[in-house]
Amino acid sequence: MLNNFFSPKSIAVIGASHNKEKLGFLVYENIRKYGFKGKLYGVNIKGGKIGTQKLYKSVNEITGDVDLAVIVVPAIVVPSVIEECGKKGINSVIIISAGFAETGANGRRLEEQIKETAHKYSIRVLGPNCLGIIDSWSKMNASFAESMPDKMNISLFSQSGAICTAILDWANANCIGFSRFISLGNKLDVDENDILRFLAEDEKTGVVLGYLESIHDGTVFMSAAKNLSLKKPFIVVKSGTTAQGAKSISSHTGSIAGSDLVTDAALKESGVIRAGSLEDLFDLAKIFAFSPDMKGKGIAVISNAGGPAVMLADAISKSRLKLARLSDRTRKVLEETLPPEASVHNPIDVIGDARADRYETALDEVLKDENVDGVIVVLTPQVMTEIEVTAKLIAGMKERGKPIAVCFMGGEKVALGREILEEKEIPSYDFPERAVKALEALHEYYEFKSHATGTQGTSRRVQFNKNKAGKIIQKAFSINTQYITDGEESAFDVFDAYGIETVKRSYGVNFDELKEKSDHVGFPLAVKTCAKGVLHKTDIGGVKIGVRNDAELQKAYFSIRDNVRRAGYEEGSDRVDVYKMENDGVEIFLGAKKDANFGPLIIFGMGGIFVEALKDFSYRIAPVTHAEAKKMISEIKSQKVLNGFRGMPEVNRDKLADAIVGLSWLMLDFPEIKEIDINPLKCTDKKCVAVDGKIILDLQSSHVLELIK
Amino acid sequence: MLNNFFSPKSIAVIGASHNKEKLGFLVYENIRKYGFKGKLYGVNIKGGKIGTQKLYKSVNEITGDVDLAVIVVPAIVVPSVIEECGKKGINSVIIISAGFAETGANGRRLEEQIKETAHKYSIRVLGPNCLGIIDSWSKMNASFAESMPDKMNISLFSQSGAICTAILDWANANCIGFSRFISLGNKLDVDENDILRFLAEDEKTGVVLGYLESIHDGTVFMSAAKNLSLKKPFIVVKSGTTAQGAKSISSHTGSIAGSDLVTDAALKESGVIRAGSLEDLFDLAKIFAFSPDMKGKGIAVISNAGGPAVMLADAISKSRLKLARLSDRTRKVLEETLPPEASVHNPIDVIGDARADRYETALDEVLKDENVDGVIVVLTPQVMTEIEVTAKLIAGMKERGKPIAVCFMGGEKVALGREILEEKEIPSYDFPERAVKALEALHEYYEFKSHATGTQGTSRRVQFNKNKAGKIIQKAFSINTQYITDGEESAFDVFDAYGIETVKRSYGVNFDELKEKSDHVGFPLAVKTCAKGVLHKTDIGGVKIGVRNDAELQKAYFSIRDNVRRAGYEEGSDRVDVYKMENDGVEIFLGAKKDANFGPLIIFGMGGIFVEALKDFSYRIAPVTHAEAKKMISEIKSQKVLNGFRGMPEVNRDKLADAIVGLSWLMLDFPEIKEIDINPLKCTDKKCVAVDGKIILDLQSSHVLELIK
Repeated sequence: MLNNFFSPKSIAVIGASHNKEKLGFLVYENIRKYGFKGKLYGVNIKGGKIGTQKLYKSVNEITGDVDLAVIVVPAIVVPSVIEECGKKGINSVIIISAGFAETGANGRRLEEQIKETAHKYSIRVLGPNCLGIIDSWSKMNASFAESMPDKMNISLFSQSGAICTAILDWANANCIGFSRFISLGNKLDVDENDILRFLAEDEKTGVVLGYLESIHDGTVFMSAAKNLSLKKPFIVVKSGTTAQGAKSISSHTGSIAGSDLVTDAALKESGVIRAGSLEDLFDLAKIFAFSPDMKGKGIAVISNAGGPAVMLADAISKSRLKLARLSDRTRKVLEETLPPEASVHNPIDVIGDARADRYETALDEVLKDENVDGVIVVLTPQVMTEIEVTAKLIAGMKERGKPIAVCFMGGEKVALGREILEEKEIPSYDFPERAVKALEALHEYYEFKSHATGTQGTSRRVQFNKNKAGKIIQKAFSINTQYITDGEESAFDVFDAYGIETVKRSYGVNFDELKEKSDHVGFPLAVKTCAKGVLHKTDIGGVKIGVRNDAELQKAYFSIRDNVRRAGYEEGSDRVDVYKMENDGVEIFLGAKKDANFGPLIIFGMGGIFVEALKDFSYRIAPVTHAEAKKMISEIKSQKVLNGFRGMPEVNRDKLADAIVGLSWLMLDFPEIKEIDINPLKCTDKKCVAVDGKIILDLQSSHVLELIK
Repeated sequence: MLNNFFSPKSIAVIGASHNKEKLGFLVYENIRKYGFKGKLYGVNIKGGKIGTQKLYKSVNEITGDVDLAVIVVPAIVVPSVIEECGKKGINSVIIISAGFAETGANGRRLEEQIKETAHKYSIRVLGPNCLGIIDSWSKMNASFAESMPDKMNISLFSQSGAICTAILDWANANCIGFSRFISLGNKLDVDENDILRFLAEDEKTGVVLGYLESIHDGTVFMSAAKNLSLKKPFIVVKSGTTAQGAKSISSHTGSIAGSDLVTDAALKESGVIRAGSLEDLFDLAKIFAFSPDMKGKGIAVISNAGGPAVMLADAISKSRLKLARLSDRTRKVLEETLPPEASVHNPIDVIGDARADRYETALDEVLKDENVDGVIVVLTPQVMTEIEVTAKLIAGMKERGKPIAVCFMGGEKVALGREILEEKEIPSYDFPERAVKALEALHEYYEFKSHATGTQGTSRRVQFNKNKAGKIIQKAFSINTQYITDGEESAFDVFDAYGIETVKRSYGVNFDELKEKSDHVGFPLAVKTCAKGVLHKTDIGGVKIGVRNDAELQKAYFSIRDNVRRAGYEEGSDRVDVYKMENDGVEIFLGAKKDANFGPLIIFGMGGIFVEALKDFSYRIAPVTHAEAKKMISEIKSQKVLNGFRGMPEVNRDKLADAIVGLSWLMLDFPEIKEIDINPLKCTDKKCVAVDGKIILDLQSSHVLELIK
């Protein structure tokens, strides 16, 4: 559907100019001089010539078909030009011109006009305010970039034109080429999601790089990105907008879940490889473009110097990879071939006087070793070192089915060696730690591809009682209450309805009723007033904990009732609630937060006072499958605490995952919920019980009316 | 004292050779051709000539004085050569030859011989197995490195010769020069501590870089490193030896405190800037060599592209620096001078079409702004960008008293601009995030220098009862017990003696005694058997907790006594201990571990089950002053939990610091202690009480005899 943007048979540059200072000249010239094979028309309202070619006064003057229009006229004229394009039957337009939404209200109005006209004529529009498109396969440079990248299987799109220019310049200097190179600009029409869908099906694209500042439609993005990631690696830099100002925070979840967290979850769940910086993006691009899969975690290191080998071992041990344990056979062969001072354990030290042959032996052997999944070769320039020969022999082992990352350390001496590696498409890094990060990402992508389940397992579990939860939420809305906590028709009842076990509880409006009704709850109890309007129950003596028998319960009932009345609360003061105290178990935190762009974010972590303090949590976007929930549980650092640490019970991960899945569906079923805190969920080997929790409603939710009607 | 190594008036190269394939040729030639101004003698047992110069058969043949001998003969001959040097009166020797300790036992024996001879003649020896020394001030290249660095105020020493070669090569390619460049080799005599002392006094050295794989004498290193750091920045890469194998772990402290932790503490306390990789080392070298102090945390960012500016804002917000709030004046001037689309808030976006003048205005203004402590300038190559002119004008603002770090993004297009920056000694980075890390280190070093207290405040507090603690420890040794825990003469008594408040406790050998003696303790109580040999008290019913009154105490006494006897423990079964249960307070962990190299490491963190699970702790090497202890407390992530979080009491930081100081002195006073765990220390706003703890003795300690005698 976007084919005309990349392989048009004919292009009209509207705003083409013979004035070499103008973008209209640059763009026209770029298309011409880099060898575009189709028809090229220059359009300029003043007519005239560009070089030997005629300039048409309007696209209407062109007799042949035009597949793609590239617009470089002042912003104010663009709407009428689009109208002309529509009349001419052009269905693909790139607007390079700036001066639109990025400049304020007038520019936004111009964009609205363009959108309307484009819609009328079914025109797809890329830009405005963009660098254009470069396609190395059709040799089309429809941009004002001053160079043309080499042909390679990497495609790139960027929301920032400046980043495009810097990347092109960097790529040229590093022997990296591109297949499709797209500057998105203001995303008036064509956005990242269109591009993702196109590149997913594009045979000329093996790796996708993206630079994004915002994501248009989160849900669509996740599905497009996952579809793409299942086919080819998609590496993205997403610059966040760090929240510097104060936010009003009404829950733990609110304070944990910044806007970047949900983006991060969305990228991870879609299998997108997130690079932290452009530097990382480039590092990863190389390894993904040039390497076979990294199927396991075992790295072999070959070095002619001990120092860098030790540093590399450090870096590997801090990563999710590991130093491979070399097989007996490998070690035996290395022992027989390498000099006696060499270390034949991983890292393999071929010693400072190693020529290329030692590297060859070692590399050949570790590539054969089935404990080795990837190799890092380190070279320091020493007196005997054969830098170029070594580079070539490494390149010769490229097709052995395992990734090899190389680090030639130094500057001018190793420059030629590095160049050879780049030409032969061996991923080469200036510093060894970068190779580790790259291989780590390569392996994680392999894991994603191997275990991605698509959408299976996300189907709804039937036993949730949507009706019951709905009534409680509806009632809160009807009395305009934002918080659902404890008391009558409490958050607990909503959790119950979604399969989240809750604390045993009861109530009574006099002591006899309380005693009778709470018989099944069991001791010890926490006893709390239910009087209307009390905000801080503890402060006025409205709470007693550790109540262990009927006598103590009686004392607690009357003391609470009297305390509350004495503090001036009459209404409802005779009602008292009791909760079974769950003394055993690990305190877990579950949270959920609606995100308008991506959907509800579900958070799991250590509970009690530690949830915010230690920031040890994992997260997903709903729906969360049971399998994903178990993965979430395994991702937090406090694994020891979950495994029956120091006399604590081991946490039942199945039950815990059930609670996460229930919470995820609760959020999906009720978009009118803004946030949920369950803290703590007390977890033992037998059960996971919500002991405290609250639901915060979004009183502005557009779903509310639907619910209340 | 090491002067002859760097500015000798005469050098003898022993092993000099006319054979161009030999190191002996390379070294002699390097000294000659790079312009060493003093006398140069070649020595070769075979005599002959090198070029037009005579080769002496032995140093004894040389008639003049020799300040420095550089030895390049086979290892086996070196001891006799050293003997000759001694007789000749040479007091400084570099042994470049390899084949010593690094090759095994024979090599180690050779080193021993050399050490003996050197000692006899008072010869200082650098090496063996090293690259040599380069000194750009005396134009002496006494090494086999194939290039000569430019003169600059950076000195470097490295334990790895291979790293030296790579660094020299990198430095040449990046316009970085060196003052003194030292390859340490096997550190037979001259080690890092000698070098640190020399460089601290060296006027030609402004910044010190070091690469270390091991540290000889930790205590001396700390003092030499701190002395150096107070005068000039000392940046070090210390490659660890990651513990991969299983260790026997007898305490929490043991499991937390790997060998790298104590190194890290030692470096931090000495004001050493630790670089995580060679890449970071180079990044930091530039900023420290070229920049004035960074006196505050406020960074101004100037960019001609929005994308990188946002990424930079992200990186700054994740660092310990912050985006400066520009003054009203600055914003007003920028508003008047920059085009309306420009952003005059920090980050300042001078917009894609900015020529050099806009950079100039913006940079000039932020340098004047007193809220700005440092500047990062970002440039992307766009159509109007004046790359070289901008580089020059930035260089022109170098002397304005604030650090400026620059990032020209791209490749070939910005190469010339980067070169100008390098020549003018403006720290330049290929990616913006690197500039943030560099400025962060610059500021932290400034903070260290400004607040370094020397040794004041480390003097002993008098009230510790060393005698009392000593007796308990002595007794444990006398009965060959490694663990001091609870019971009679317990770890609690030792803690008491060092000012660490401990849980109220008592005991009795029958119920009446218990009741009487525990009157002052107060309820609720934890009651535990004190019978001999019981390892797991809970398992055999030897523990009751939550005992709330005399009746329950009586029940507990007899039930514990009977349970224990039933389980087969008779001796001491009538004795029962009681401990006041401290239900309130935050659970803190204090640990200590003896390190043979650096001294005791003191660890502070969140206690209870979280200590190991969450790895949230800070650490110092003893002695810890009260002020440092308070800094330790402020370094852990769980600050919220210490500040009276969610109804918990606020922790009394003064009392907590007292406990840390006491623990620190306890470790210093008794080197026979291997490890101490205090877990938990229950802390409220009033007190910090050790509720559980153990002391593990080092039964192999050489101090033991002294103690027991």
